[in-house]
Parts: sequence; C-alpha cells; structure tokens
Amino acid sequence: MSHNSFGHLFRFTTFGESHGPALGCVVDGTPPGIALTEEDLQADLNRRRPGQSRFTTQRQEPDQVKILSGVFEGKTTGTSIGLLIENVDQRSKDYGDIKDKFRPGHADYTYDAKYGFRDYRGGGRSSARETAMRVAAGGIGKKILGDSIVIRGALVQMGDRHINRDNWDWAHVHDNPFFCPDSEAVPEFEGYLDDIRKTGSSIGAVIEVVASGVPAGWGAPVYGKLDQDLAAAMMSINAVKGVEIGAGFESACLTGEENADEMRMDGDSVAFGSNNAGGVLGGISSGQDVVCRFAVKPTSSILTPRDTVDRNGNNTEVSTKGRHDPCVGIRAVPIGEAMMACVLADHMLRHRAQCG
Amino acid sequence: MSHNSFGHLFRFTTFGESHGPALGCVVDGTPPGIALTEEDLQADLNRRRPGQSRFTTQRQEPDQVKILSGVFEGKTTGTSIGLLIENVDQRSKDYGDIKDKFRPGHADYTYDAKYGFRDYRGGGRSSARETAMRVAAGGIGKKILGDSIVIRGALVQMGDRHINRDNWDWAHVHDNPFFCPDSEAVPEFEGYLDDIRKTGSSIGAVIEVVASGVPAGWGAPVYGKLDQDLAAAMMSINAVKGVEIGAGFESACLTGEENADEMRMDGDSVAFGSNNAGGVLGGISSGQDVVCRFAVKPTSSILTPRDTVDRNGNNTEVSTKGRHDPCVGIRAVPIGEAMMACVLADHMLRHRAQCG
Amino acid sequence: MSHNSFGHLFRFTTFGESHGPALGCVVDGTPPGIALTEEDLQADLNRRRPGQSRFTTQRQEPDQVKILSGVFEGKTTGTSIGLLIENVDQRSKDYGDIKDKFRPGHADYTYDAKYGFRDYRGGGRSSARETAMRVAAGGIGKKILGDSIVIRGALVQMGDRHINRDNWDWAHVHDNPFFCPDSEAVPEFEGYLDDIRKTGSSIGAVIEVVASGVPAGWGAPVYGKLDQDLAAAMMSINAVKGVEIGAGFESACLTGEENADEMRMDGDSVAFGSNNAGGVLGGISSGQDVVCRFAVKPTSSILTPRDTVDRNGNNTEVSTKGRHDPCVGIRAVPIGEAMMACVLADHMLRHRAQCG
Amino acid sequence: MSHNSFGHLFRFTTFGESHGPALGCVVDGTPPGIALTEEDLQADLNRRRPGQSRFTTQRQEPDQVKILSGVFEGKTTGTSIGLLIENVDQRSKDYGDIKDKFRPGHADYTYDAKYGFRDYRGGGRSSARETAMRVAAGGIGKKILGDSIVIRGALVQMGDRHINRDNWDWAHVHDNPFFCPDSEAVPEFEGYLDDIRKTGSSIGAVIEVVASGVPAGWGAPVYGKLDQDLAAAMMSINAVKGVEIGAGFESACLTGEENADEMRMDGDSVAFGSNNAGGVLGGISSGQDVVCRFAVKPTSSILTPRDTVDRNGNNTEVSTKGRHDPCVGIRAVPIGEAMMACVLADHMLRHRAQCG
Repeated sequence: MSHNSFGHLFRFTTFGESHGPALGCVVDGTPPGIALTEEDLQADLNRRRPGQSRFTTQRQEPDQVKILSGVFEGKTTGTSIGLLIENVDQRSKDYGDIKDKFRPGHADYTYDAKYGFRDYRGGGRSSARETAMRVAAGGIGKKILGDSIVIRGALVQMGDRHINRDNWDWAHVHDNPFFCPDSEAVPEFEGYLDDIRKTGSSIGAVIEVVASGVPAGWGAPVYGKLDQDLAAAMMSINAVKGVEIGAGFESACLTGEENADEMRMDGDSVAFGSNNAGGVLGGISSGQDVVCRFAVKPTSSILTPRDTVDRNGNNTEVSTKGRHDPCVGIRAVPIGEAMMACVLADHMLRHRAQCG
Repeated sequence: MSHNSFGHLFRFTTFGESHGPALGCVVDGTPPGIALTEEDLQADLNRRRPGQSRFTTQRQEPDQVKILSGVFEGKTTGTSIGLLIENVDQRSKDYGDIKDKFRPGHADYTYDAKYGFRDYRGGGRSSARETAMRVAAGGIGKKILGDSIVIRGALVQMGDRHINRDNWDWAHVHDNPFFCPDSEAVPEFEGYLDDIRKTGSSIGAVIEVVASGVPAGWGAPVYGKLDQDLAAAMMSINAVKGVEIGAGFESACLTGEENADEMRMDGDSVAFGSNNAGGVLGGISSGQDVVCRFAVKPTSSILTPRDTVDRNGNNTEVSTKGRHDPCVGIRAVPIGEAMMACVLADHMLRHRAQCG
Repeated sequence: MSHNSFGHLFRFTTFGESHGPALGCVVDGTPPGIALTEEDLQADLNRRRPGQSRFTTQRQEPDQVKILSGVFEGKTTGTSIGLLIENVDQRSKDYGDIKDKFRPGHADYTYDAKYGFRDYRGGGRSSARETAMRVAAGGIGKKILGDSIVIRGALVQMGDRHINRDNWDWAHVHDNPFFCPDSEAVPEFEGYLDDIRKTGSSIGAVIEVVASGVPAGWGAPVYGKLDQDLAAAMMSINAVKGVEIGAGFESACLTGEENADEMRMDGDSVAFGSNNAGGVLGGISSGQDVVCRFAVKPTSSILTPRDTVDRNGNNTEVSTKGRHDPCVGIRAVPIGEAMMACVLADHMLRHRAQCG
Repeated sequence: MSHNSFGHLFRFTTFGESHGPALGCVVDGTPPGIALTEEDLQADLNRRRPGQSRFTTQRQEPDQVKILSGVFEGKTTGTSIGLLIENVDQRSKDYGDIKDKFRPGHADYTYDAKYGFRDYRGGGRSSARETAMRVAAGGIGKKILGDSIVIRGALVQMGDRHINRDNWDWAHVHDNPFFCPDSEAVPEFEGYLDDIRKTGSSIGAVIEVVASGVPAGWGAPVYGKLDQDLAAAMMSINAVKGVEIGAGFESACLTGEENADEMRMDGDSVAFGSNNAGGVLGGISSGQDVVCRFAVKPTSSILTPRDTVDRNGNNTEVSTKGRHDPCVGIRAVPIGEAMMACVLADHMLRHRAQCG
C-alpha cells in the first residue's frame, strides 16, 4: 500500500512539491523491449504545460523530463524507469499571507489537520504540479498499449455552457486553448472565460476521455473492475468531484429497455446498437469505446476575499493574488488521458497474467 | 493485488456465486477487543435482503451470517474473521435460455470474452448476491468506527423523479420500501415503480450516503485520497455508473466564489458555511459530513425482448422471465453505507498508522 | 496489505482457529479453464493430515476440503475459489492450565502482548492447523503450473542426524513416515524419534523442497526476487527458523571459483556444471532445479516442565500433556511443497504479465 | 505489487543502474514531523561506500544523497520523500567482453532469459549499487524507530573462519575494515582476505544484524510475520543465499527442552533465560533482541577464467578484470542494518494501525 503510487502491475510512484527542486516518478512493470525516448513523453507534457495561453496560469515551466533509468539503447529494459522534471519558476514571492491562513476549498486546512504542519509554498504536495508526472507515466502507458488503442480527451462543458455533441470533431481539439471538440463553441467559451479571468474569478468544467480499440475482456469482476479503477484514477486528480462511465448519472433516468445496448453480429464480430455502458459491463471491457467523464471544480484561488480562519484560531479573510488558472479543468484534459492510459496498461498486463 | 479483495489495512475478500452453495468473506485487519456478534451483522443484512416488499426480487434468502473465526469470547481477536452465508433459494429452473445468450447490459458477454466460459446460473459471480458480503464486512467496519461516526444512506432519485431535499428527514428512511427520506415523495415513487414493475420493465436511481462525525485528517494526498477510495468503492457496486462527492458534477457550473466553503471559528472548532466539498479537501477529510452520491442503472433483466447474439455468433433475442428487481437501486442503499463504512475504517487505521 | 494473505497475482487468504468450527481459504487469481476437483486437493491434504503414524499428533482430523465457489462444470472460472475444512476433533479438554500461562517457545506471550488477549484453545490462530489451507491452496498452485513442473520435498535432517545424500531416491519418500529420501536412514530416524517421543520431548528437522522444470526467466530483480519470495514463504510456516537457497549458508565458505556454476551448451539449451545457485540468479530462475531448504525448530509442547510466567505476572512452570508432534518438521514436507507451488504459480503469472 | 518497492506502510521504491546517470528512491509513509537532513542519511551511506579500504572495490563514488521532497523546514511532512544519488565514476571501459557472455553466478543469463536483453554495463540494475538506496531508506527507517531502538550489524564469518563470539564487542565493529566485532579475529581475516584478493579470487561471509529495544507485539500472525519479512528483506540483498533467525538452522538439532526460552519475572517485565527464538515467537516480537543472520556468497567476478556460453549459443570462457569486491559480504553489513530498520519501521506502523 502506498499513498504516492498508482496501479498494480503497471505502477508509478511520484514525489515532489510545487516549490521544491524537482518532481519525480518511478514507473514500474513496463514490459521490456519497448522503444522509448524522452521526446515520447515530452509531447503530452507540453500539452499539459502551463503558460501556453492566457487561460492558464502564467507560471513558466518547461517541464523537461529526463529518463534516469530503465531504458537502454532506446528500449525499455523491464526494470524501473526513473523520471525527473526540475522546477525552474518557483517565484520567490512572500508567502506570508498563505502561510498561516487556510484558503477555503484548498487542502491547506486538511493537510494541517492531518500532519500538524505543511509545506505551504504554492500548495506543496497538494499542487497540481504533481500531475506532470502522471502525464509522463501516461506516456509510457500509451507505449505499452500500442498504436491500436487511441486515447483522446476533450472539454465538453465549462460552467453551465455545454458543447453541441453533434459538432464533435476530434480534429478540432488541438485547434483551441480549451481542448474543445466543438469549434462553434470555442468563441463562446473564449468570451465567457475572459470575463471570468478578468474579474479574478474561476469556473468549473467537465472533461470526457475516450479510449478506442480496447479489446473485450480487460478488467475483472467485483473489486478489480475496470470502471472502478477509472473512477479512482480520475477522482485522484486534483479538483475532481465526480466521475461517470457511459450514460453515467443519466442512467438513473433510463428504463431497462432504453439502457440495454443491444447486440448484433457484424461479420465475425459483435456490434452494439448504443453505448450506455461506456464500454464496460460487469467491470470488464466490452470492446466498445471506453467512455469516462469527470467534473472539475473551479480553482479556489480567486481574487475576491473569502472568510476563513488562520492556524491560530482567528477569523480572517483571504484572497489569492498572482498567477492562477481561471479554469483548471482545461489542463485536466491531458491528465485525464494519461490516467486512462495508466489504468488500461495496468489492466492489459493483469488480463494477460491471468488469461494468457 | 487481488480482484476479490477491497481495502488495505481494513480489508475483506469475498467469494461465492449466485447459485453456488454459499457466499463467504474473510475480513482482515480488525483491531482486537471489539465486541462482535452475528446479530451485529444481521441487522444490515436484513435491510439488504431481497423479498421484503413487492419492489425487490422475490428470491427468498434469509442471508443468515455465520462467524467462523476471529472472534473469541464475544470479542475480535485481531486475526482474520471468516464469514459464511449459505444460499438456500437457488431456484432449480431451466437456464437454457440464458446459458448461451448474452443479455444486453449484463456481464454475460464480457465474462465469456475474458474467461472463455462462465457460470451462467443466476449471473454466477457477477450476481448482486455478492453484495451481501459487503454488507457483512461493512457491519464490522462500523464497529471499528464506533458510535461517534454515523453512516446513513437514502434514495434521492428514481428515474427522473427527485426527492424534495427540503423534506429530508432521516427518520423516514426506514418507514418505506425505498429508503426515501422525503415522505411526501413516497406515494409518487410507489405508483411510479408499480407501473414499471407491472410492465416487466426497470428503472435507475441515485443513492446518497452521508457519514457524520468523521474527524478532520483522514485520507491521504495524491493516490490515497479518501474521495478516490470512495469513488472506487461505490463504482465497484453492481450497476453503478457514476459517483460524485459533495457538489459533484454541479461543481462544474460553480464559480470559485460560489464553490468555496467559507470557514469561521465556532468556539474552538472550525465551522464551514457550506459543504460543496462533501467533507473532503485535497483527498483528506475536513471534519464536515462526508457526502457521496452514486447512480445505479436499471437492471437489464426485463420482460421486453431485446436484440442480442449467442455464444455461437448468431443473432437472436432475449428477455428475462422470473424474479428480478424493478429498481436495483433500492437495495443499493445499505450496500453503499457498507462501502462507506469500509473505506472509512480503512482510512482510520491508515491515519493512525502514520500520524499516531 | 493483508496479514492473512499470501502472494500477489496468485493469492490466497486464510482464516480459522485450531478449535473453531472450521478453517477456510479464498484463492484468487487462478486462470480460467483449469480442471479442478476436491479430490485434486485432498491428496496433498491427506499427506499433511495428523494421526497417520505414531510420529505425529494423534488428533484425528479428516481434513476433508469443500470447494464452495470458483469452479463450474469441473473447471476453474477465473473467479475466487472458496475452500472450507471443518474441524471435527477439537477435544473438549480443560484448557485451564494453558489459558493463563505462556508456554516458552510458543506464540502465547507475543499474542497477548500484541492483542491484549488470545484464543488459547489449541493455540488458536497460531496453530499449525492453519497450514492445511496452505496445502489446499498449493494444490491449486500445482494445477496452474501444470505437469511439466514437479515439486517434491523431503526431510534431510532430524536433530543432528543427516541423511546420506548419495542414497537420495525420491521414490522412497512416501515409503516411510518421515518423508525421508534415504531408505537407509529410516530405521535410524525411527529409533531416534521413538526415544524422543517416549520421553515426551521433541526435536527439530531440516526440509528440502525441489522444483524441477521451472523455465529460466521467472522472478524479478531487486524486490520481487524469486528467492526472496521463497524465503518469505518458508519462513511464514510455523516453527521455521531458517531458509536457504542452493548452497545456502555453505556458500559463505566457498571461493568464487567453487561457487560459480559453469555453463556449457547442450544442444540448443544451456547446461550447468553445478547448482550452487539453487536455480536462482539475481532473483530470476535459471532453468535449473529450484532448491530450497528450511529448518524447523522442535515443538515447544513438551512433557518436561519449563519455567515461565503467567498473565498476572507470576512466576510458574508449565508442561504440555496430551497430543503433540515429537517432530513437527515431518509434516512440514507437504507444507513446504505447497508454499513452493504457490510462489512459483504467482511468479509464473507475474512473468507472463510483464513478458508475455 | 511492485518489483522495485519494499515494505507496506513504510515503503520505498528504487530505480537506477550501475552506469546510468543516477540512483534514486521514493520513500513513502514516513510519519510527519520527524527531523531529517541529508547528513542523517550520509553517515550510513559512507559506511557502505566502496573504495574505503583495499578490501572493497576501488570504484570511487561519493554517494552524496540529495533530498528532493518530503522535508520542509528540516522536518518530514508526511508526503513522499524523493532521494537521488548521482553516479560519478562509471568507468568508460570497453564492456565488449561482458556484453555477450554470461558470467557464471551473475544475473547476466537470467536477465537475458527474462527480458530478451539487458543493460550489461556494470551489471545494470542487478548491480549492488542499488543497495545505496536501501541504506538511505534505512536511515529514514531508523529515524522513525527513534533512539530507543538500536540496530547493529557485524561480520561473524568469512569463508570458513568464524569469529569467537566470546570476544564480541560492538565497540570494535567500526575499528576495522570488516565490521568484525572480535578484534582478535581481525588480523586473521586481514591476511586471509589479502591472499584471496591478490589471486583475484573471492570469498563468502555471514553477517549478523541485531535490533535491541524492539517492544513485544510487533509483527503479525500467519503471513505478516516479522521474521517472514526479515527473511524476505535479507534474501532480497544481492548475493544472499540464506537467512536465519535466532538459533536458525541450529534449532534443527535442539530438543524442545533446549530450545525453549524460559521466562521469569524481572520486576514488572518478563526476562528470558535464552534467545533461541531470536526475538520472534509466532511471527511477533517478544521484546528480546531481534537477531538475524544471512549468508553472502562470494562475488562471481573473479580473475580465473570460467567456462560459460555467450548469447549466440557458443561455448566460451570469461574472467573479470578490473575493480571488484574480494568479499562482498563486508559491505553487506550496513545494508543488512538498513533492511532491518525498514522492516521494523514498517511493522511499527502496522502495529500502531491495528492496535493503537
């Protein structure tokens, strides 16, 4: 058991704080002989990287990853892969205001309650900078899965604005700063988020991650369910408050007739008439797209002062000046993809172990 | 790693199929010296037990649990607790129809895809009968947590009918066959579900589970988050398709100002002005109520024939005659409570291990 | 993490006390489609069973195992296998003497120190009756490994009497009550142990377990070493105080030249000139026989009174009347084989997971 | 499950190869608020460091450890601690000879059999350089245990030369390059090992590690035994072939009367007349010294050519020129201490979790 590790057979363990010297990760269980370079990991890291548009924090971190072990002559050796990213833009500002005050909605209060004190600089270990290592690990996960499995994420809701799913085009996702698959929604999101950004406020979002090409049979009954592990994976991402698979919460409104994804033979393979299941039945993949959505709350770092208390038991108020994400959900897209990749890579190995 | 175990320090492992001789469970990690009898576990088992109203399956199972080990002179010894429930009402009907056909929305197809064959009798291991052992394990979890922590669940939505939260009264939950906390909604639910039942259809539901009295500080950052483990716990329950904590998916629509649960001193303790966080910040409990909701899809066992395929690759159709739950969500209430108890008991021990 | 589970991908969890109603086990991770019956498991259970000669305890336990789940139409389904053995010969004697006194060399004192009290009847959970479930689990492990891997154990030392390894003949192992592979040593052991038995004393032993047919490549570097897991497996057996692989402690006396197992090609495969490594190099199997030995201390249940203390802090003395094993090492042979089978089955699955 | 992690609640994960850029480690589960500096870890690292006498390899590695996370204002925060040691003396020699030949007694052959290829430079991941991170993790383990628990190791046998235990004096252990507690044996060991060193040969050794001050009650029955975890810990160290607790293999020769460690009250506490149990009964600590010994085989890197095969299936021979340890057992002393510290720290937390 480890509070800083994720996965079973494909397993990674992270360390590092927002304002420490570096972030790191050990990736364990990678099969041998897979071609792997730092560039393979950098592409996704660059997508998650802050400071790329006015809609994410302006902290400038190149997030350049180094592979310290486990790769020899360009291929994975099967031993543990050490990854390191140095922090370079820890702004030496005065943390006096945050040091003793608990920001509402942050982990400040609960870390103190648990550990008696905390590294308050930039959120310390509770900072979303940790997710850089998830993305790096996810890059290795994708290499294990191979080209036949494609994992893609998109932002489908910002505040109460939903995309029009009829306009969905994966090709558009990387055309805009929101990872939005509906190009018609982009201008609306842009105006909406600019207003929020300028007032120093923030807003939530919903992200959808889809894995295509997953064969039927991955996952396990009861407590090794594929959707159970996806739920844990997504809920472990900073600021996530809800996870759903396929029809998700909407399935509460469906009748058995509506919900059943009917099956027909399509040549030698099985074709489904719908995908309310989100590609998972009884915890095991069905061969359909694995579809997962998660809700990201607005960041609690806002300009408007909020009531709070300090470490000495006094009432006070707090506001966050300086760099922050008006919609942290945006950068959660590559993170969600990475977690999907890690869960699938783990279950691919678990399935192979038991079923050959 | 185990596909049939849940939890870390407080950990249980289950076995048993719907139509096998018995269900069983081994509960590990229970502290010594806790008073425990079979009656302690039976109360919750009776709440989950089928056949208690016309709104659940008519299979008659007393679900009488036996403690086979780990308790001596009425107290837990600290060693593994073996639990056993015998199956008594495995109806000896002809399973011919289900044996070779994959019921849409069931695990039939995916089990076959994974394992090459399956115990088709009553769903085998994928049957919700497994959840009896969760409830038994949860009973031990509650004993570990003690009286200062109260865990309660309720049905808050059936189909598209929502309860009126202003009418919420825990005292009413056990007054009706739906575990509904809004007594005014009961007659409506009754009529609604009778219609569904009579047509042999089924419908989904949303369940809310609340734990009061959880101290601040339980849980862990990053990959040992309390809400991550709750998400996994609830998503591992049969038919669950979504999980949310606190404001959940609604938090996507909130601004940072709205979402922040402001804090004020209340004597020596901290009081929060709202609970959008659902009692968990940064993966660690805040001392507020831990609030978790999950969506249960309608059972796929319906009278209306649905298109499907058989094991030999032929198109066919299938319908389910005989006993079934028109709204499986109902019986998920004590199951959700049990999973909440197990997650909390595990985290209580994990917190004590690290922080004394 | 679980104190009552062993293994990772092939994993079993046991429960039950010496004088409780039953012993049980859940076996997890078994591949699907393996033929399995209760008779398959009973053969080894019968070899471990007490009361078969005057050299083991006279407690009469048929140790009849029931399979409660995980097998359908004669084959494993891939889901958890529940096993149960009922206790039938819990003699209703007065435990008054043992109840409050700590037997030297027993777990009495340490259980009390840990848990504050204990099930003192027949040793409770610390009883070697638990090992029946290891043997049952090991039977499933052997089925997973298949016929090409043969696991055999033998007693090679009793007290200071060693077998003559030149006389080693596996065919003789089941000809005598000691699992002794040297038929010439049997009469000597017989006389020696009769003397010990008649005086109510006891004696230690060394057991050797050999697995033939293990392919090169199982195990893992660093903390997943095959020999590390064998060491844990054997040391977890009641009364074991030492474990060695291949040349073991003797390797401390060897020079690098003597210790190196030289290699030559033998057709297409590699042949080794010796097996000081015991079939494991760098934690990974080499294709040679995997050879493991372990030392079993004498049982502390002896007729001669020994100085001890009681639960109330008084000096006293204690002796054990009634049934006991004059050399518990004897019955450790099938247990050691079972643990070898479980470790190998686990590593077979682990290797397949990572390396295909 | 992880092949590069050790421990459960106190758990560390390592990475790095002999000739890669760095070694690293993530330490998880450390309680918060413990004072910790790099200097705390460096002391033990310096004791393990090569090149300090003519009796260890002449590779010059400062083994300077950096703490990258998990410590704030001089105290552990309770989050993961990242450690890094850069390799500085990877000699750029030609590895041509080793690249394709399997050195007998090394992991060369088995790594290739498992993974299909390997990082052959200096043994890659199978190099004992990995143990530097064990020592660093062990340093944190000792901090968790606190000053009341003292862990000390010594070399008690080199080749067939044993120390005289009557001369045992812990004060002498650090007076000589062998960690030998018998000052009279030092000159003999010196001459003996000089002869071996000059001929380019090598020899095995036995190390004893003793932990004093461990309270009664740590460990767990059945599969969480303290001695089981010690056996795994020591057997996981490179070149270890045997592990024993207390009387160990000698206990096979003892009668029940001789083996029983009798107990008497000594004021309010229990005193034992002997320690054949090595401080562990039924898997749980008794309050006596925890005593563990392990055998280290001679390094297989020797000057004398040995028969072997190459990757292409040809017979050939191999000898190792350049730097090596004539007795790798020597440097195993601080490693064994570190593993003892890690096992105890883990069990301290596990005990506290369950028993408060």
